[in-house]
Amino acid sequence: MQITPDNLDAMAVGCAFFGCGGGGDIIASQAARYALETFGPVDVVDLDDLPDDAFVLPCADMGAPTIFFEKVANGDEGVRLVREMERVQGRTVAALLPAEIGGSNGITPLVWAARLGLPVVDADGIGRAFPEVNMIALELNGVDVSPAVIADERGNTAVLEAADGAWMERMARAVTVEFGGAAALACYPMDAATARRAAVRGSISSAIAIGEALRSPVGDPVTTLCEHVGARDILRGKIVDVDRRTDGGFVVGSVTVDGLGADRGREVRIEFQNEFLAVMENGRPIAMVPDLISLVDAENAHPISTERMRFGLRVAVVGLRAPEVWRSPEGVALGGPRAFGYDFDYVGLDQQEVSHA
Amino acid sequence: MQITPDNLDAMAVGCAFFGCGGGGDIIASQAARYALETFGPVDVVDLDDLPDDAFVLPCADMGAPTIFFEKVANGDEGVRLVREMERVQGRTVAALLPAEIGGSNGITPLVWAARLGLPVVDADGIGRAFPEVNMIALELNGVDVSPAVIADERGNTAVLEAADGAWMERMARAVTVEFGGAAALACYPMDAATARRAAVRGSISSAIAIGEALRSPVGDPVTTLCEHVGARDILRGKIVDVDRRTDGGFVVGSVTVDGLGADRGREVRIEFQNEFLAVMENGRPIAMVPDLISLVDAENAHPISTERMRFGLRVAVVGLRAPEVWRSPEGVALGGPRAFGYDFDYVGLDQQEVSHA
Repeated sequence: MQITPDNLDAMAVGCAFFGCGGGGDIIASQAARYALETFGPVDVVDLDDLPDDAFVLPCADMGAPTIFFEKVANGDEGVRLVREMERVQGRTVAALLPAEIGGSNGITPLVWAARLGLPVVDADGIGRAFPEVNMIALELNGVDVSPAVIADERGNTAVLEAADGAWMERMARAVTVEFGGAAALACYPMDAATARRAAVRGSISSAIAIGEALRSPVGDPVTTLCEHVGARDILRGKIVDVDRRTDGGFVVGSVTVDGLGADRGREVRIEFQNEFLAVMENGRPIAMVPDLISLVDAENAHPISTERMRFGLRVAVVGLRAPEVWRSPEGVALGGPRAFGYDFDYVGLDQQEVSHA
Repeated sequence: MQITPDNLDAMAVGCAFFGCGGGGDIIASQAARYALETFGPVDVVDLDDLPDDAFVLPCADMGAPTIFFEKVANGDEGVRLVREMERVQGRTVAALLPAEIGGSNGITPLVWAARLGLPVVDADGIGRAFPEVNMIALELNGVDVSPAVIADERGNTAVLEAADGAWMERMARAVTVEFGGAAALACYPMDAATARRAAVRGSISSAIAIGEALRSPVGDPVTTLCEHVGARDILRGKIVDVDRRTDGGFVVGSVTVDGLGADRGREVRIEFQNEFLAVMENGRPIAMVPDLISLVDAENAHPISTERMRFGLRVAVVGLRAPEVWRSPEGVALGGPRAFGYDFDYVGLDQQEVSHA
C-alpha cells in the first residue's frame, strides 16, 4: 500500500475522525500533498514485514492545533528529528510511526517520510488522539519515552532524557511553549519487534477505509460512518455555543449542541482539551475518554475539528469504543476521565444508555 | 594551586563579590566543602598548561538563587552533564570552567570537579555574574553555545541545539522553570586554545585573593577591599527597604540604602535581576551594568547577596569596572543597561562623578 495524492484526502478524513476534534488537518494535508507530489508516494508497511531489529521512530507535531495555522512548519523539522535521533541512537531509522493517528498527527509523518524516502508503518501509538506526550499505548506497553528529540522551524533542537513519561510531557511542553506553541517531536524510539506488541495496529489502513467509505455513502452518511467503524450515533443537532481558548499550549473549551429531529429537546455539551473529553447531558457524562468522541457534519459525516466549530453547524455527535488497551485499568488511569481532572469514573460507551431514538 | 577546605571560604567570599548580589553561595559552599572533604582537593590549572585540544567544559547552575535553598541539588547533576556532553561530543572532558565566577556558580563546579576527579581552569566565562545564559564573554568571543546539556536532580536531561545564544537562553530557561526553577547546565563546549582567547582569565585566583585580603584587613575592611580590587566606594549606609520577588525563574526587585556618616542625606536605590543592575541616586544612574555593583557588610566587607538583604543592615555600595570585553560596544549591547530594559546609555564608573566624600 502507498499513500499518494489520490488517497491522501480519504486518509485525512479518517485521521480527523480518530482525531476526536483535535485538528490541524487542513494545513497538514496541504503540506503532505506538496511533499507527496514533490518527493513521491510514501510506502505503508506492515510491522510483520519489518525485521525484528528495524528501528521504528514514532513522531508527531506537538502544540495547540490552532497555532499551526499561523506558525507554519517548513517541512524540514522531521528530517532533523530523524537525523538527530539516528546520531543519538547510533542506528538508522527504518520507518516512521505516527505517534497518534488522530488529526494532523496522522498526516504530518507523511510530510517527513516523503522527504526522507522512508516508509510509514500501518500502526500508530494511540489509536486515537490524546493531548499529552505520555498518553500513548506505547507508555502503557512499557516502551521507554527517552530519548526524545524536539525541533522547531528555526533550527532549534533538543534531545530529552526524562525520568519518566510524565516528565517528558512537562519538558517537551515547556520547550514547545517557548518555541511559540508548536514543535516537532520524536519519542519512544523502538525496534519493530517492540512496536508489534506495543503499537496500535492497522491505523493507517483504517483511516483510509473510513475516508473511502464516506466517498460513496449508502443512504445517510452519518449512518454509513457509524456502521463502518462500529460507532454510536449519540445525537443529531446544531451547534448553539462554542467556548474556545488557547491555554498553556492547549486548545481548551466546550461546544454545546441542541438536538434536532428525533433529538429535539435534548442538549449536550462536549468539553475538550485539544480533543473531545466528555459529552455531558443533563449534567451527566454520557460518553467520555478514553472512548472516542467525534463531531461530524450531518450532511456528509466529515469530522469537524474544534477550531472549525461555529454556531449553526448541523452536526452529529458520534462515539466509538476505545481500543482495548485503553479500557484496561492502566489505560483508564492514563487516558480516562480522572486523568483530565474529572471527578467521575469511566463508564464505557457500551454500558451507557443513550436516549437517542 | 588547589582548592581545599582551607581556602574554600576565601574563594567563596571572592565569588560573592563577583556575584554582584547573585547568591546561593552558602548552600554551594556547604556542598563544595562536603565534596572536597569526601573526594579530595580540586586542582586549579592555568589554560596555558593545557594542550590546545583539551576539552574545556563551562558549567553552572541555572535558575533563581533563592530556589536553591529549598530545592537542593544532589551533587550528581554535574557528573551527568559531563558524561552526556562527552557522549554527544565523542571526546573526554579535560577540565571544567565556571561559566560565571560570580556567586554560587563560582563554587558549584568544584562540587562536580571533586566528584569527577577533574581540574578546574583558572578562568571563567564572564568575569562577574549575569542572569542569562548568553550574557557571557564566550558569546562575545564567538564560541558556539551549542550543544548544551541541562539536567535536574531527578534524572531528567536535555541536550539542546539552539539557533543562537538567545534561543539557548529561552530553551534552557523554559526547561529550568519546568524543573521547578533550578537546573544544572553545561554549554559553550570548547577546546583549551579557544578558551585561552575567549574566557576571562585568572578568575579563581582573583576570587581567592579577595577572600584572603579580607581575612586580615589593614584598617577599614571596605577600604581594604576597594584598594585590593581597584573598586569605588560609592556609599556607606543602611538598608531601609527591600523589594524582592521571584518572577519567571529570576529574583527581581530593588534595595534602598540611606547614607550614614559622611554620606548622611544621600539615598540610593539598587535594582536587581538576580544581580545588581543599576545604582540610582536622585533618579539618575550612578553605576550600572556591565560594571560590577556589590553590596558589602560595612563591618567586614563581606558581600551580601540579594536574598540576605534585610532592613537595618549597615552596608557599603561598591562598584568595579567590568573587564574590557564587556566595555566594548558588543559587550555593552549584550550586558549593558539597555539589555536589561533600561532607557539610558552605559556610562562607565570611571566617567561617573560620585558625591561621596
